[in-house]
Amino acid sequence: MTALDLTADAVTLTRQLVDIESVSRNEQQIADAVETALRALPHLEVVRRGHTVVARTTLGRASRVVIAGHLDTVPVNENLPSRLDEATGILHGLGTCDMKGGDAVILRLAATVTEPVHDVTYVLYEAEEIESELNGLRLLSVSDPDLLAADFAVLMEPSNAVIEAGCQGTLRVDVRTTGERAHSARSWRGVNAIHAAADVLNRLAAYEARKPVIDGLEYHEGLNAVGIRGGVAGNVVPDECVVSVNYRFAPDRSEEEALAFVTDFFAPYDITLTDSAPGALPGLDRPAAKAFIEAVGGADAEVNPKFGWTDVARFTTLGVPAVNFGPGDPMLAHKQEEHVPVAHIERCERELRAWLQGEEAQR
Amino acid sequence: MTALDLTADAVTLTRQLVDIESVSRNEQQIADAVETALRALPHLEVVRRGHTVVARTTLGRASRVVIAGHLDTVPVNENLPSRLDEATGILHGLGTCDMKGGDAVILRLAATVTEPVHDVTYVLYEAEEIESELNGLRLLSVSDPDLLAADFAVLMEPSNAVIEAGCQGTLRVDVRTTGERAHSARSWRGVNAIHAAADVLNRLAAYEARKPVIDGLEYHEGLNAVGIRGGVAGNVVPDECVVSVNYRFAPDRSEEEALAFVTDFFAPYDITLTDSAPGALPGLDRPAAKAFIEAVGGADAEVNPKFGWTDVARFTTLGVPAVNFGPGDPMLAHKQEEHVPVAHIERCERELRAWLQGEEAQR
Repeated sequence: MTALDLTADAVTLTRQLVDIESVSRNEQQIADAVETALRALPHLEVVRRGHTVVARTTLGRASRVVIAGHLDTVPVNENLPSRLDEATGILHGLGTCDMKGGDAVILRLAATVTEPVHDVTYVLYEAEEIESELNGLRLLSVSDPDLLAADFAVLMEPSNAVIEAGCQGTLRVDVRTTGERAHSARSWRGVNAIHAAADVLNRLAAYEARKPVIDGLEYHEGLNAVGIRGGVAGNVVPDECVVSVNYRFAPDRSEEEALAFVTDFFAPYDITLTDSAPGALPGLDRPAAKAFIEAVGGADAEVNPKFGWTDVARFTTLGVPAVNFGPGDPMLAHKQEEHVPVAHIERCERELRAWLQGEEAQR
Repeated sequence: MTALDLTADAVTLTRQLVDIESVSRNEQQIADAVETALRALPHLEVVRRGHTVVARTTLGRASRVVIAGHLDTVPVNENLPSRLDEATGILHGLGTCDMKGGDAVILRLAATVTEPVHDVTYVLYEAEEIESELNGLRLLSVSDPDLLAADFAVLMEPSNAVIEAGCQGTLRVDVRTTGERAHSARSWRGVNAIHAAADVLNRLAAYEARKPVIDGLEYHEGLNAVGIRGGVAGNVVPDECVVSVNYRFAPDRSEEEALAFVTDFFAPYDITLTDSAPGALPGLDRPAAKAFIEAVGGADAEVNPKFGWTDVARFTTLGVPAVNFGPGDPMLAHKQEEHVPVAHIERCERELRAWLQGEEAQR
C-alpha cells in the first residue's frame, strides 16, 4: 500500500494523493492510505464508513467545525501522474484542482493542529463525482448524522482560494412536444413535433436570467437546453420531440418553487422532472460564518457567490452553515488540463491553520 | 423449392408470393421460383442477374413496354403468412400491398398474354426497399441497359389501382447551428447552439408548400425536420445542434435546384447534403403515355400525381416515360397491417391485359 507522509508539505502531499488513482467507485486504496495515516495520530478519533474516513478532535471545545473534501475523481484522461512545473508554480494532473489539493490541506491540518480553538471533524469522503445515492457525505448523513453535527462547515471545493458562499440549486426537466406521424412525402397529413419545438426554443432564447442579491452576493440563474432529440426515420414526420432543460436557480428559491417556475415557463407543454437538488443559502449572517470570514479574509474579505452546485447544500439541509473554500479554479475541474497553483494550496492551508489556531494569518 | 402456379388466379398467386418470405437481401428463394416459372413459358426469353429476373417477348412489334415490380419486402413484423378475409375481399400480410399483388399481375400477364400488341419486357427485381446501390433496377440499368430500353414503362407500385404519374424528388440535408460550450452553472459564458436552432425551426414552421401543376397534375412539396439532435451532457451548454431536414420536391425542379432552394432557405446556416434522388416528370404529353391512359382509364381516366419517390424516376433518367399503376394503398406500405383489396389486383390485371391485347377493358 502507498503510504502518505503527513510530515511532508501540502504540495508534496497533494502529489502523493494525486498519484493514487481514485476514480469514483475505486477509492479503496486512497481511503486505506488516508485511514492509516490518520489512525497514527493520537489526538484524533477515527471512524471509517465504506471508503469515507472521519477523524475528530474531542477536546470539549464550545464549538465544532467540519472540514470536508471528497477523495474521488472523474475518469482518467491521460492526465496522470502529477507533474509539477517549478517555473510557474503550477501542479498539473487529474484531481489536483478537484480536489486533492484541498484534501492535502485537510490532512496537513489534521496532523499538525493538535490544539484547535474549535473541535474539528475532518471528513474525507467517497463518490462525489457520481450519482447522489452513492455520495459518501450523503451516506454519512444517513448512517451517522451525529458525526456531521457542527456549528459551521468548510468544503474544500475549488474556489480559487477565496470564500464562495452558498450554492445554486439545479433541476432538470424534459419538455415534450407532440404531433402526428405521416410519411414525409405526404407531410400535410401529419403534425411535425420538431417544428412545434420552435416555441420551446424561442422561449429559452428569450429567457432573461434572474440575478437576486442574497447576503450581499449576486447570484446568476440560468435556463438552458442541454439536450434535444426527435425523429423516427428519414422519411417520417416525427410525432415527438424532447428538449432537456437544466435550470440553475439561486438559493432563495426552493426546489418546489424552481419546479413551479419551470412548469409555468413552459406551459402548456408536458414536462417531466428528471433531476433536482436544492441550493444553499450563503448564511453569511450566522455568527460562525461571520467569524470564519473575518479570520480567513479579514475585514475586506473577498466573498463570492457559488454558481455551481456543491455538497454545501447537504450541510445546509442538515442545518449547518457552510462555505466553499479550496485551492484551484472551478472552471478547470473535469478538464484534461486540470491544474492548481501551488500558491492556492499554501494560502488555503495558512488561512485555515490561523483560523483553527485562533490567530490572524500572515498575509 | 416452392413452385409458383402461373395458371392460378392472380389473388392465389399473390398469396403464393407473399408466403415466400423475401426481405431485402434474402430474395434467392423467390427469385428462383419466379425464374423457374417464367423459363417454363416458351414465348419468353428469360435473363437473370443476381436476384433480378427479366422475361421478354421478341415478336418484332413496333413498340416495346416494360412492366416492372420489386420482389423484396421490408422486414417481417408478425404479418406472415398471408390471410384472406373472404367477407371483405381483403388480403392481409407483408408484401400484399408493396408489392406482390403487382408482381402476381405481372406473372399472370407474362404467362397468358402470348401475343401482345407491344413487345413486353417483364422485370421482377431485388432490393428496392434498401440502399440505392443494391437496387436491382439500378444494377440492371448499369449492367444491361438494353434490357430496359422501351417506349413506356409501368411500375406496379401501389397506387390504389389508378394511374399515378411522375414522382416527387427527395433530398436530405443536415442543418447545423453552432455555439460555445460552458458549464451550465455559468451558462452566460457560453453560447447555446440548441437555442440557436429556434431560428431554423421557426423557418420550417412558417414554410408554405409549393404546389406546382404539371401536365394537369397538382404536386405538393414538403419541407420537414425528420430528426434533431444536440447536447453534450446534463451540465453543459451545448456547442452544436443538427436538424435533419427532408425536402420533397415537385418534378419540375432538378436535384440541383432543390439543393439551391434549401441552401437559400436556411442561409446562412451550414448545411450538408446527406441524400438526394431526382423526381420524375409525369410525361403525360408523350404518345405512349397518352395511349396507356386511354387504354387503361378511358376518356375520363383518373390520373393522380405521385407524391412519394419511386423507381419511375430511374426510367425517366433512362429516357423512358413511366407511371405507377398497382394494387393497394401506398399509405399501407411498410405498415404491420399491410393489406390489399382483391378488387385492386383484379382491376389492374384486367386493365393491363386489355391494354396489351389492344382491347378495351370491360368496366
